[in-house]
Amino acid sequence: MKNKVEARTLKGFRDLLPQEALIKTRMLNVLRSVFESFGFAPIETPHLEYSEVLLDEHSGEISKQVFRFRDQGDRDVCLRYDLTVPFARFSVEHKAKLNFPFKRYAIGNVFRGEQPQLGRYREFTQCDFDIVGPTAGPADAEIVQVIVAALDALKVTNYQVRINNRKLMNGLALAAGIPSEQTPDLLRVVDKYDKIGRAGVIQQLKEELSLAEAPASQILDFCELKSSSTNELLEQASKFANKHELIALGLDELNNLVIALSALPNLKQKVVLDFSIARGLGYYTGCVYETRLLDLPQLGSVCSGGRYDNLTANFTKDALPGVGASVGLDRLLAGLIELKLVTPQTSPSQILCANFDASVLPQVYKIASELRSAGLNVEVFPETGKLKKQIPYAEKQGINWVLIIGSDEISRGVYLLKDLNTGTQHELNSIEEIGQLVS
Amino acid sequence: MKNKVEARTLKGFRDLLPQEALIKTRMLNVLRSVFESFGFAPIETPHLEYSEVLLDEHSGEISKQVFRFRDQGDRDVCLRYDLTVPFARFSVEHKAKLNFPFKRYAIGNVFRGEQPQLGRYREFTQCDFDIVGPTAGPADAEIVQVIVAALDALKVTNYQVRINNRKLMNGLALAAGIPSEQTPDLLRVVDKYDKIGRAGVIQQLKEELSLAEAPASQILDFCELKSSSTNELLEQASKFANKHELIALGLDELNNLVIALSALPNLKQKVVLDFSIARGLGYYTGCVYETRLLDLPQLGSVCSGGRYDNLTANFTKDALPGVGASVGLDRLLAGLIELKLVTPQTSPSQILCANFDASVLPQVYKIASELRSAGLNVEVFPETGKLKKQIPYAEKQGINWVLIIGSDEISRGVYLLKDLNTGTQHELNSIEEIGQLVS
Repeated sequence: MKNKVEARTLKGFRDLLPQEALIKTRMLNVLRSVFESFGFAPIETPHLEYSEVLLDEHSGEISKQVFRFRDQGDRDVCLRYDLTVPFARFSVEHKAKLNFPFKRYAIGNVFRGEQPQLGRYREFTQCDFDIVGPTAGPADAEIVQVIVAALDALKVTNYQVRINNRKLMNGLALAAGIPSEQTPDLLRVVDKYDKIGRAGVIQQLKEELSLAEAPASQILDFCELKSSSTNELLEQASKFANKHELIALGLDELNNLVIALSALPNLKQKVVLDFSIARGLGYYTGCVYETRLLDLPQLGSVCSGGRYDNLTANFTKDALPGVGASVGLDRLLAGLIELKLVTPQTSPSQILCANFDASVLPQVYKIASELRSAGLNVEVFPETGKLKKQIPYAEKQGINWVLIIGSDEISRGVYLLKDLNTGTQHELNSIEEIGQLVS
Repeated sequence: MKNKVEARTLKGFRDLLPQEALIKTRMLNVLRSVFESFGFAPIETPHLEYSEVLLDEHSGEISKQVFRFRDQGDRDVCLRYDLTVPFARFSVEHKAKLNFPFKRYAIGNVFRGEQPQLGRYREFTQCDFDIVGPTAGPADAEIVQVIVAALDALKVTNYQVRINNRKLMNGLALAAGIPSEQTPDLLRVVDKYDKIGRAGVIQQLKEELSLAEAPASQILDFCELKSSSTNELLEQASKFANKHELIALGLDELNNLVIALSALPNLKQKVVLDFSIARGLGYYTGCVYETRLLDLPQLGSVCSGGRYDNLTANFTKDALPGVGASVGLDRLLAGLIELKLVTPQTSPSQILCANFDASVLPQVYKIASELRSAGLNVEVFPETGKLKKQIPYAEKQGINWVLIIGSDEISRGVYLLKDLNTGTQHELNSIEEIGQLVS
């Protein structure tokens, strides 16, 4: 007899058992409907791409994390590490077949060989939605609406979408004399505001960017502008508009965004401007978004994105601007479980049809089929045997209703439905009655 | 300016544009609901596994096709080439947390570096559903019901599920003196029956398995048993039952299967016994299934599967029997497009809200949001501009309805809805009226 292999998942990877996979599947269904309800169409790109397509000299940290190898034809290939770069390649390759403005969503797994840590895995699911073609304007406002619609549809409560505009920070940087190639460093430091506070950020700006006290303070003064009224906040910010034309432009874009959303009352409490939002990614050039669960702020953003001037710079000289965001599904799922906003469930079944008498099995299948046609999830125990083995199965699976059909019930034309929660047995006369009781 | 990279997909791989991705997404939603309506729960396993988990000395042809490499930690890893072997690993690794009988479905992409050919790609989607735990009996009958429910729900018409039992062929082989290690060769030859006919199969059985004329003929006589009545067919087959006990056992299993399904009238025309079905895979030991679109037989099987004695032999000495099948989604999608049973669609949107007057954009967003709450897919053109640019966009996207809201309509409290198909403009008074017209 040959040696057995140890049954183990690859280091850094994980399985999803039904408890989590059922919730995740439902969340993905909800996201797909929301994206499509806004006219976003799905696309799919391969999990594997040529390395030269995914990586360039700016890839930096990512190129160390990427799963890269040579395929059977000795081609240099990578597993995708996000859905954005493949989308850029896709937009150029199929340009002639796409109608612009082009709105696509993509849901898929991406791979990064990061050091495994609690709740972080080397394979995770991204849910991206983007509008490419239009420059700043209504498209930016639409992304905010999709984020809110998605979280509302997922029954997430007490969250906040925070919006900023990258032009503001870029303008402040230029006004402070920071060369534009250092803007990413500025963003990185400002991004720590929540953790190290005003004094810490100023300290690091002085040390790492050689900023003087005055311009560093001015950047912090701007980031710290606060008001419960969006219009008042924009009013306060307008005092900085004369520091650099980019600041004026960024405020103008934010102002238009606020106006565009002004007739949507349900957004009022959920969407705020926040000038301290940096979003680390260097390629954003306009609006940036992030989304926090207010009851679990330490989770970080569960839906982030922004506007970029040019998606396709690596592939073509024709610039393709766009705006989009991505739901961090694995993180959101972990948050919703933590907050008990979703209930893990072991089985999708609502009813277990007991199977203890082979002679009536054909009738049991027929009844189960009729119940499914009535919209119920119904399973028949897949072995004929004793009822006392099947009830515990239903209990362990969290299936509350057991339909007991023997020759007696068949001959009397009734359905015996046991409620495992209460122990009550209901004698019912039709499929409709079962549906009413169970649903 | 740095050199541009050519935007191209990896050799053997492909993208799905919205036209196909929309249909595929809907088909997957339908399959998920059907699987769950029978109580199958989703699970997910990683795309990457240790090579020793996926490959063994029996992997043969597959090991040449698999994408295998060393990860950052120098671990020998493979991209999965099916969902069955990972499921076996999963069943052993999580055994203590699963309730048996365990019913799982899994939908995911798998990778095989086959020579690319028309309609065959190196990455494709599998949709597997299996019941593990029970031995032959009701579980086998349930798989048939799931196949029929899935194809019916996908609106596939004129298909046939063909069922056989591997014990019959194994028994015939043993009765003919073919050693059991040669049974796979026998199956491979018999599988060519549709292509090379009786004489061709007999010829090859003689040449490749050194069979004499009489036993070869006998095997063919059995494969060719035909009757429009299942019971009559079983009656004919019963004459072979005394050749080997496996034949008697296989016929018994088929007989029980037929009885179990006997009260489901909608299965009558769709499910047949066919003793010529071999299903190449060596590990099947009982029922085998395949499914043909009768209007496109050359497509091959779109849903196949069977019963196996032991899923987990590579990992543990505890045998885990099961039965399952897999929908070949890419092949089925290609077939449905070919047969015009699905209509490719470029956009999920039903209505385009024109966007030509920035001052009313907030109201347009509000109306679009109300239409979405009424269950419609509605997009707002993501740039404010001339109507004459937006109508052609709607036409190209196949969106038939354009909602035109200007300050005049707002002040009059009406909605102007243009039917691009007829050119008619409807003046409507409520969201409900729009919903009724469009749906």
